[in-house]
Amino acid sequence: MKCAENHCLQKWLLVLGFLLIPMILPGQSKLLPVQYVNPFIGTENGGNVFLGAAVPFGLVKPGPDCGNNDNNSGYRQEGNINGFSHTHVSGTGGGAKYGNILLLPTTGDIRIKGSGSPRSGEEAYAGYYSVFLSRYQVKAELTATRSTGFHRYTFTNPQSGNVLIDAGHFLDFGHDWGEAQEFVGSELHILSNTEIAGYSRIRGGWNKGGAYTVYFYAVFNQESIRSGTWKNETLHPGVLDQPDTGDKTGAWFSFNSSSGGPVLVKVGISFISSGKAKLNADQEIPGWDFDAICKQTSETWNSLLSKVEVDGGSEYYKSMLYTGLYHSMLMPTQRSGENPKWKSTEPYYDDYYAIWDTYRTTSPLLTLILPDTQRDMIRSMIDIYRFDGYLPDARSGNDNGRTQGGSNSDMVIADAFVKGLKGIDYEIALQAMIKNAEVPPGGNEQKEGRGGIEDYNTIGYVSTNHERAGTRTMEYAACDFAIATLAKGLGKTDLYEKYLKRSSNWTNLWRPVESFGASGFIWPRKRDGTWEENFNTLQPGSWGDFFYESQSWEISLYVPHNVPGLIAKCGGAEKFETRLDTFFINSRPNRQGWMDFYNVNNEPGFLTPMLYHYIGKPDKSSERIRQIIQAYFSINRNGLPGNDDSGAMSSWLVFHLMGFFPVAGQDIYLIGAPHFPKTTIDLGNGKEFKVIAKNLSEKNRFIQSATLNGQPIDRAWFRHTEISNGGTLTLVMGESAAYWGSSGLPPTDPTE
Amino acid sequence: MKCAENHCLQKWLLVLGFLLIPMILPGQSKLLPVQYVNPFIGTENGGNVFLGAAVPFGLVKPGPDCGNNDNNSGYRQEGNINGFSHTHVSGTGGGAKYGNILLLPTTGDIRIKGSGSPRSGEEAYAGYYSVFLSRYQVKAELTATRSTGFHRYTFTNPQSGNVLIDAGHFLDFGHDWGEAQEFVGSELHILSNTEIAGYSRIRGGWNKGGAYTVYFYAVFNQESIRSGTWKNETLHPGVLDQPDTGDKTGAWFSFNSSSGGPVLVKVGISFISSGKAKLNADQEIPGWDFDAICKQTSETWNSLLSKVEVDGGSEYYKSMLYTGLYHSMLMPTQRSGENPKWKSTEPYYDDYYAIWDTYRTTSPLLTLILPDTQRDMIRSMIDIYRFDGYLPDARSGNDNGRTQGGSNSDMVIADAFVKGLKGIDYEIALQAMIKNAEVPPGGNEQKEGRGGIEDYNTIGYVSTNHERAGTRTMEYAACDFAIATLAKGLGKTDLYEKYLKRSSNWTNLWRPVESFGASGFIWPRKRDGTWEENFNTLQPGSWGDFFYESQSWEISLYVPHNVPGLIAKCGGAEKFETRLDTFFINSRPNRQGWMDFYNVNNEPGFLTPMLYHYIGKPDKSSERIRQIIQAYFSINRNGLPGNDDSGAMSSWLVFHLMGFFPVAGQDIYLIGAPHFPKTTIDLGNGKEFKVIAKNLSEKNRFIQSATLNGQPIDRAWFRHTEISNGGTLTLVMGESAAYWGSSGLPPTDPTE
Repeated sequence: MKCAENHCLQKWLLVLGFLLIPMILPGQSKLLPVQYVNPFIGTENGGNVFLGAAVPFGLVKPGPDCGNNDNNSGYRQEGNINGFSHTHVSGTGGGAKYGNILLLPTTGDIRIKGSGSPRSGEEAYAGYYSVFLSRYQVKAELTATRSTGFHRYTFTNPQSGNVLIDAGHFLDFGHDWGEAQEFVGSELHILSNTEIAGYSRIRGGWNKGGAYTVYFYAVFNQESIRSGTWKNETLHPGVLDQPDTGDKTGAWFSFNSSSGGPVLVKVGISFISSGKAKLNADQEIPGWDFDAICKQTSETWNSLLSKVEVDGGSEYYKSMLYTGLYHSMLMPTQRSGENPKWKSTEPYYDDYYAIWDTYRTTSPLLTLILPDTQRDMIRSMIDIYRFDGYLPDARSGNDNGRTQGGSNSDMVIADAFVKGLKGIDYEIALQAMIKNAEVPPGGNEQKEGRGGIEDYNTIGYVSTNHERAGTRTMEYAACDFAIATLAKGLGKTDLYEKYLKRSSNWTNLWRPVESFGASGFIWPRKRDGTWEENFNTLQPGSWGDFFYESQSWEISLYVPHNVPGLIAKCGGAEKFETRLDTFFINSRPNRQGWMDFYNVNNEPGFLTPMLYHYIGKPDKSSERIRQIIQAYFSINRNGLPGNDDSGAMSSWLVFHLMGFFPVAGQDIYLIGAPHFPKTTIDLGNGKEFKVIAKNLSEKNRFIQSATLNGQPIDRAWFRHTEISNGGTLTLVMGESAAYWGSSGLPPTDPTE
Repeated sequence: MKCAENHCLQKWLLVLGFLLIPMILPGQSKLLPVQYVNPFIGTENGGNVFLGAAVPFGLVKPGPDCGNNDNNSGYRQEGNINGFSHTHVSGTGGGAKYGNILLLPTTGDIRIKGSGSPRSGEEAYAGYYSVFLSRYQVKAELTATRSTGFHRYTFTNPQSGNVLIDAGHFLDFGHDWGEAQEFVGSELHILSNTEIAGYSRIRGGWNKGGAYTVYFYAVFNQESIRSGTWKNETLHPGVLDQPDTGDKTGAWFSFNSSSGGPVLVKVGISFISSGKAKLNADQEIPGWDFDAICKQTSETWNSLLSKVEVDGGSEYYKSMLYTGLYHSMLMPTQRSGENPKWKSTEPYYDDYYAIWDTYRTTSPLLTLILPDTQRDMIRSMIDIYRFDGYLPDARSGNDNGRTQGGSNSDMVIADAFVKGLKGIDYEIALQAMIKNAEVPPGGNEQKEGRGGIEDYNTIGYVSTNHERAGTRTMEYAACDFAIATLAKGLGKTDLYEKYLKRSSNWTNLWRPVESFGASGFIWPRKRDGTWEENFNTLQPGSWGDFFYESQSWEISLYVPHNVPGLIAKCGGAEKFETRLDTFFINSRPNRQGWMDFYNVNNEPGFLTPMLYHYIGKPDKSSERIRQIIQAYFSINRNGLPGNDDSGAMSSWLVFHLMGFFPVAGQDIYLIGAPHFPKTTIDLGNGKEFKVIAKNLSEKNRFIQSATLNGQPIDRAWFRHTEISNGGTLTLVMGESAAYWGSSGLPPTDPTE
């Protein structure tokens, strides 16, 4: 049964409903939020979402590893399953990261190489994964707590069953781009007939981070009849210890599988020590009740997913919504108590991967529905600044890196601040943001801080002496606005004025050239002030180029902190509208799979379809959004338009399905057309925010009138502070564009 | 018996002779080099040398820890001994580093706090240390192999004896200067009645490095009758495991000390894992023969010390010489196979602490007598560049930092290159040096690279916007000369010319002001080109100041790559001589223990007493050197004038005792008056270099004439390349200055 296909949605819901039947109260017919999660969505087409078992923000993410074919999550639909490793990222691109401590149930002789198996019967729900490995005739099931993977292997073959434990395994691709992981060392000790401990030490990967060590402790529910270890490709039957000599090590346990029932194994994981890994396993899973842990994890998911409840609307959109929420809660990973670099009472999260991706949608989503979690993440970021020297822009394996564009933690902090998130030391946060803005990261320009800031702070833009100069200039300007926002809020007028002024630096790269009828584009500029002439407004780029994952048509529209200024630069509202139309209408896949103009999957364009709001045409924004969702999203395996980027893309979808969209770093949501008649959001403080769309249907998708908290409004935006103590946005929907919301254009704090 | 006092030298030699009697062949009456080593020299008066047992460049350095009173080596003469930890540095200052995995033999009840003991009968030789702990009536003896500490505890009290193992211990001072170590975590597992493993994880310390983990595995020669563990200050009798929960842990083993004879314990140490620590212990010390390991370590020392053999001369100077050589071989530490950060086939050394100190004398000394070791150290430095991004200037605990002055690995590499050291990839070394010179280290200005290089590379000096601007400018100029030297040698003329030009940047801080009759001083200069007016030529400084461990009188004479240019700036030879005279004659301790003018212990002045050579008066250099040695050096505990700085000060002494001194980074040795009639140096390639001083006596200390390899020379210098395939320098000594060597002033490669 392959459950990712649209046509089998009903079957899948039934199976999941059956599994979770104890959670449905008598008389309750409505499906639970967790039942709408389909983890297969976004596993193909470059979505690269994690497939396997995990709790929200789980440190362990046990899941199948299917070779090294640029499948960053470890998973792909085709090919053999090589085993189930315990560390994965979700939705990322570029070089690999993690894939450590791989277990594989086999039968027959022990083989180190070529032991992967074809599969059938793959199933996945939030917190549960299972597959039948046809080569070995074994059903493998996975569930997890925060730090412990729990495996159940049911051998159907009369042969004795083995479990291989590979401490040398890691996801291994990205060599051509210098982003591959490198092996450092591994160690194993078989402690008894049921226990083994050890670690895997790896460096590099996409973020080019330093060495990280994944420690484990595994315990089986039954005694092995034989065991042994290997080093590199040599088996050592009966040898219990493989100390770290810089080689790849592994071990196996063989069981009398016909007598003992299913082989269960708990694999505690730690980034501190194998002793801590054992402690994690012992504390998180005291007994051997696989189903109970599965249910517990499912309930945890359901409780978080229930922060958003919808009434009405299609099952299709509900599956999109709850899977989107699920994807938004896989990363970063909660690693409090698991930081090997310093001791702190602050929370610790790792795998910000990357904040450049997630600040636009995921952070605002968490601030809305899981404010305590978002607070802890920001405290963790500040602690990283305190001990490692810089806020992370991306971070993985306990090491900052890489910075794709700006120092975008600035945006996350400003977003939290304007929305009144408590429990954060905003004074030290401001220090950290100012360090980003003022102290060049030197040779670490891809690691942290702002590369090229010397240019930016002296000549007002990052010159072509530096890579990604266009993206950097645009994002540094936005980040400077974030600093100004926080400075103003903390009463630091001098700093506010300084950074507000710098936030207009984007205009220094604005060149009055024409392209497809539009005038004025962000353009490469040399240090001496002259322009590069050999440049194309549709030329996309990456690390070494002028733009990162973008081109000039797209990024020239990225001025979230001064859209009115951008409109003026573009020649006024009318020309701006034409420019937006050109941008969206000309979007089509080109030969590389990239769009010529708009690419829904490029984060710099995340806000762009909503920019019609700023010329008083919110209906047009909503129509664009509806078209984009229909064109690029589905509940199939290819249901995401590209990398989910740690849930950034999914969070974008969640907001639009709910009917409003955040302007990150500002206390502003733009109102769009919801996909559900009623959405109720638990704000985490005992209060709720409801979005009601009266008369909503596929035809009735235009807002005719609105009230916010009972008062009529004719503005297509509202503030978080208007709903943070509870509130209701009621929209009356109709068949045609009604020019509602055309007055009262969205403001830009803190300047208005 | 306290053996550090001069008057008991004979007794000490007798004891050591007795211990090592098997090493003296029948009929051999001469003492062995190792017998002249007195590890107590330099343990007081801030010398801070390590006292304990170690092999040359040993990874483990087990020795007594005597509280936290700014005793960087762990040792001091006064107070209690708290135990014997396994990691120490030698000769350093500032905040603490290491002091991990501490063992203490006790009797009676287990006490965690206040368990230190008074001592008596302290003895130390190369590779051996012993003391009687009077509180517990136990004799403790230590010896070591590269990675394993070997302890022998002889309990004389009928009570049962305990051994405490403190995994939470570390040297803890430097808080006031932000240079203290910080605890991260620790873990312990009692594996059997004779075995325990675990680790201590610490961060910070003098070099402000990231977390490092010291793993250990300890095995006793007899079974304990009781054992237990502790966490923080709570005892847990019978509890065998203390997983890492971010707390300080420890354990104890109790023995029936009246029945089992001495308690022996091998403590394997590793920076990789406790499995590797066990492997180290098992491989390095297979049995339990303490005396055999002691002898083996002593023989290892003797074989290295024998690279320099002297005939004649006083026992006093021989003790100085061989202890100096011993001190020069304690650091850095040989950690090949023990690098937790990357896997490499290159050698790995840690604890370059700091190259700023050691490049002037220690590196040239090793190039001369242990060229293969020096080659491996440089390969290790290049590997650090390859994986960590920058060459180290200082490094400890597997982390670069801190840079006191220049990027002085440049000097080490140039020194090796001009002396023809093979087996080094000088092309990549040059890349690494150019990175130092061109890529600002950003926020990591105290960690690596060249802070303030933006100033230096644009306006020609480091402005007062940056700390240590004076020291940096002077040393960057010297380091640029090192780059030019290597570039020329590799045939890269453009680079040679570029960096040769930059090496004159020191003149940009030369201000024609007067001080004590001398004219022209290195002076603080603002970014706009104007001078700071509030400045004193005798004002010493540290991290935050204009000079680091120096003042203008001293550092204005530090232009090793262009002494003729310096002399010209000073107004010619006559004024230069007067200036040098003023500098040395006015040197006296001031209230802070600092000298007003010359401070023999300040590395920037290491070459200065020899600068008379550059005005044709080498006799005067030699007289200064002789005066300095007599005033500041002895074979007492206070026999070093200050921090030994990883052997830098000792290496300075060794060269001068032998009668020549290196100009680091250049293929030049300046000839001085030897302290021995005959010195034979094993060059490591089967060839020898002999220095013969005919007629040498306390009176006959002036060179009258010289031959090099049989040819008369009237120049007070020679090239390494003149003696690297063997050679003899024969000096004829007489009672009065003879103006020998006044012609043929020392050249400055690569410009002459």
